Amino acid sequence: MFDKILIANRGEIAVRVIRACKEMGVKTVAVYSTADAEALHVALADEAYCIGGPRPADSYLNEDAIITVALQSGAKAIHPGYGFFSENSHFARECRECGLVFIGPDPDVIDRMGDKDAARRTARDANVPIVPGCDLLANAEEAEREAARIGCPVLIKARSGGGGRGIRKVEDPADAGKAFVEAHAEAEAAFGDGECYMEKFVSPAHHVEVQVLADAHGNVVSLGERECSVQRRNQKLVEESPAPCLDAHPGVRERMHKAARDLTRAVGYVGVGTIEFLFADDGNFYFMEMNTRLQVEHPVTEFVSGIDLVKWQLRVASGAELPFSQDDITIANHAIECRINAETPEFLPSCGDVTMLHVPGGPQVRFDSALYVGAVVPPYYDSLLGKLIVCSSTREEAIRKMRSALGELVIEGVSENSELHLDILANPEFVSGNYHTNLMEHLYE
Amino acid sequence: MFDKILIANRGEIAVRVIRACKEMGVKTVAVYSTADAEALHVALADEAYCIGGPRPADSYLNEDAIITVALQSGAKAIHPGYGFFSENSHFARECRECGLVFIGPDPDVIDRMGDKDAARRTARDANVPIVPGCDLLANAEEAEREAARIGCPVLIKARSGGGGRGIRKVEDPADAGKAFVEAHAEAEAAFGDGECYMEKFVSPAHHVEVQVLADAHGNVVSLGERECSVQRRNQKLVEESPAPCLDAHPGVRERMHKAARDLTRAVGYVGVGTIEFLFADDGNFYFMEMNTRLQVEHPVTEFVSGIDLVKWQLRVASGAELPFSQDDITIANHAIECRINAETPEFLPSCGDVTMLHVPGGPQVRFDSALYVGAVVPPYYDSLLGKLIVCSSTREEAIRKMRSALGELVIEGVSENSELHLDILANPEFVSGNYHTNLMEHLYE
Repeated sequence: MFDKILIANRGEIAVRVIRACKEMGVKTVAVYSTADAEALHVALADEAYCIGGPRPADSYLNEDAIITVALQSGAKAIHPGYGFFSENSHFARECRECGLVFIGPDPDVIDRMGDKDAARRTARDANVPIVPGCDLLANAEEAEREAARIGCPVLIKARSGGGGRGIRKVEDPADAGKAFVEAHAEAEAAFGDGECYMEKFVSPAHHVEVQVLADAHGNVVSLGERECSVQRRNQKLVEESPAPCLDAHPGVRERMHKAARDLTRAVGYVGVGTIEFLFADDGNFYFMEMNTRLQVEHPVTEFVSGIDLVKWQLRVASGAELPFSQDDITIANHAIECRINAETPEFLPSCGDVTMLHVPGGPQVRFDSALYVGAVVPPYYDSLLGKLIVCSSTREEAIRKMRSALGELVIEGVSENSELHLDILANPEFVSGNYHTNLMEHLYE
Repeated sequence: MFDKILIANRGEIAVRVIRACKEMGVKTVAVYSTADAEALHVALADEAYCIGGPRPADSYLNEDAIITVALQSGAKAIHPGYGFFSENSHFARECRECGLVFIGPDPDVIDRMGDKDAARRTARDANVPIVPGCDLLANAEEAEREAARIGCPVLIKARSGGGGRGIRKVEDPADAGKAFVEAHAEAEAAFGDGECYMEKFVSPAHHVEVQVLADAHGNVVSLGERECSVQRRNQKLVEESPAPCLDAHPGVRERMHKAARDLTRAVGYVGVGTIEFLFADDGNFYFMEMNTRLQVEHPVTEFVSGIDLVKWQLRVASGAELPFSQDDITIANHAIECRINAETPEFLPSCGDVTMLHVPGGPQVRFDSALYVGAVVPPYYDSLLGKLIVCSSTREEAIRKMRSALGELVIEGVSENSELHLDILANPEFVSGNYHTNLMEHLYE
């Protein structure tokens, strides 16, 4: 095991990784921007170094500064958290060239899964179902022809896309040419890469994702799936495990998990990763993409599997072999996570100083956060204040437990969205367990 | 299941029970003294009623007021928590006579196990090992004779004793007569019952207790044991499960658990209960007493067994049958609890207003407390501020996790003992796992 690692992140995930390290006896090095000088991750780490100004490009995306601190502090590995450098193959390669372990998969795997068209073809080659569609489009005419062949509605998607950019929905094949030209131009401008492919628009659908864990010795396990269909503008709000929508479809859960493990094995993946699927009510599921990092919503899986994903990230990155196989994995109980975001009821960002904080407690209630009374929520980073996660023996009890915990949570000094979560948890579609990615549109848009 | 219950307690345990009720969809009625008007349990319950002044006799031990509130509010059952009325058979009988369910065992069982001499004889009849000794002593001459027969050192103990009163240690049989007269007089004055018995003084020994859960249909399970030898003046400070001292003695754990289940069955026990044993390093264990209620340290068992003891208390009290048997119980991982008390480094009580609070978090970290920023810690009640409980896959990791969590805990405005806990966790005897009830004497007295 590494004797010291650097955490190239901030906020709740930096705190999460530091806590795991303390438990494992691994020394920690924090880095921080000038906006985060008083942040919790800085206080909890064994060492902490300022690496630049508040803008991410100056600090948490400042490759040279981070690697310099790692080398000078004697850290043996870098944990990237999520966001920032977590899916950046250039950073991962730089780490390796400097003799540092990047806690994540091989840079080539990051590249392969980061290119959505390549990932799609990789999945197809591994016999993992993909959304009906086609590979890279040559021109507008081909787009129209393929749209007619696949059947509208379809999506035109940039292979280097992200954050909803470089995507066009097409309702009529005659519009596909114009949509292709627009998506191409937008992707070229945003990502320096205009290449686009086409997929059938599957709706209504569920976003269901499978957590995988793989070591460098060829062992791959899946650790349950998560239902993440409660999304607003592609941002997840509520996640739960197991996915209740799969219960009515015997055998689908097993096939989906097997597909996830097959793909993980096919790309030689090492570490924790997530395979995202679209699941349609007809029982079909389709590969969407692979996230080659720890997910924000990993705690729901930790509750139902009893496995600490961050500790296993460190262990497999240091070469350890998984001491358990798929047969040893038991998924028990039901876990739900609500993302507590700094935002107004109108979904506008909020920032400020935390003047009051009361965190709910009790058995199987977890609040992952970097908040404390007096903490500053700066305007430069994502809006996640904390993650409230509960677990109980049934989904019904877990929902009641979450309602109770949300009712106890008090954060003052910055606007937060716990009322929104109470609305979602009371929504009949959500309560039924069979809700789709359009749930939030139904509710609020 | 009851649709509404009253919680006849305060502090962290009242909050704990209310949270369980919310998760089960059971309405809650809180009662409080004038000193607790702003307490967390009052804020969290569905209804709350003031039942008297700050002195326990005026409020939390005010039988008439509590039962009146229960009847008027339409509560169907009363949860006594621990302390106060939790082992009071008179209160339990009054509940029954008023048509209320007392969430605990039958009053006759409370009486039988509350009389230490009767409990000792009951255990012997159930073939549970008891400390070598004798039944009630008739006079000073018999005390001297028995002390010589049993072999000094011995303890003379009042059958109605508690809190360390009515106990004398005898090093020489010649002193037993005088010690008997003193213990008898002290017990007569303190408990209105001077009857005493004698036991061999087993030392060094471990305090190891077994958690049991029984329904009204004859099903009894044991849910692991707890090592509670870290005590100061008979007050437990740190508890852990499993008990590491049993690991070196093959078969003892199984025999101890069987003895606990046998005794539970023998007395017709219903509910959660704890059988306390003395465990000596020669591998022998002896019945000490049974606590006929929920224990303060129940969360360590909840972590290692995955079973919510408060929810099962309510379920079996409402007549439910346990859906699992002993074979279904799995004890996994290692849990430790530290009792965070309001006290100075000199062990003097502390009270005041909580001006700052920061609670540690992360996977498998639990802080059961009724604290919030602005909460008042009044001088009238016990000193427990909260219970910090952690769980990890090994004892070594659990100790590191607890050290890390204690390091994060901030409580200002009242003195607390987290530094003492850090000292205990660093003590080589504690770290070895083989420590005895005299650990704190070695350390601090």
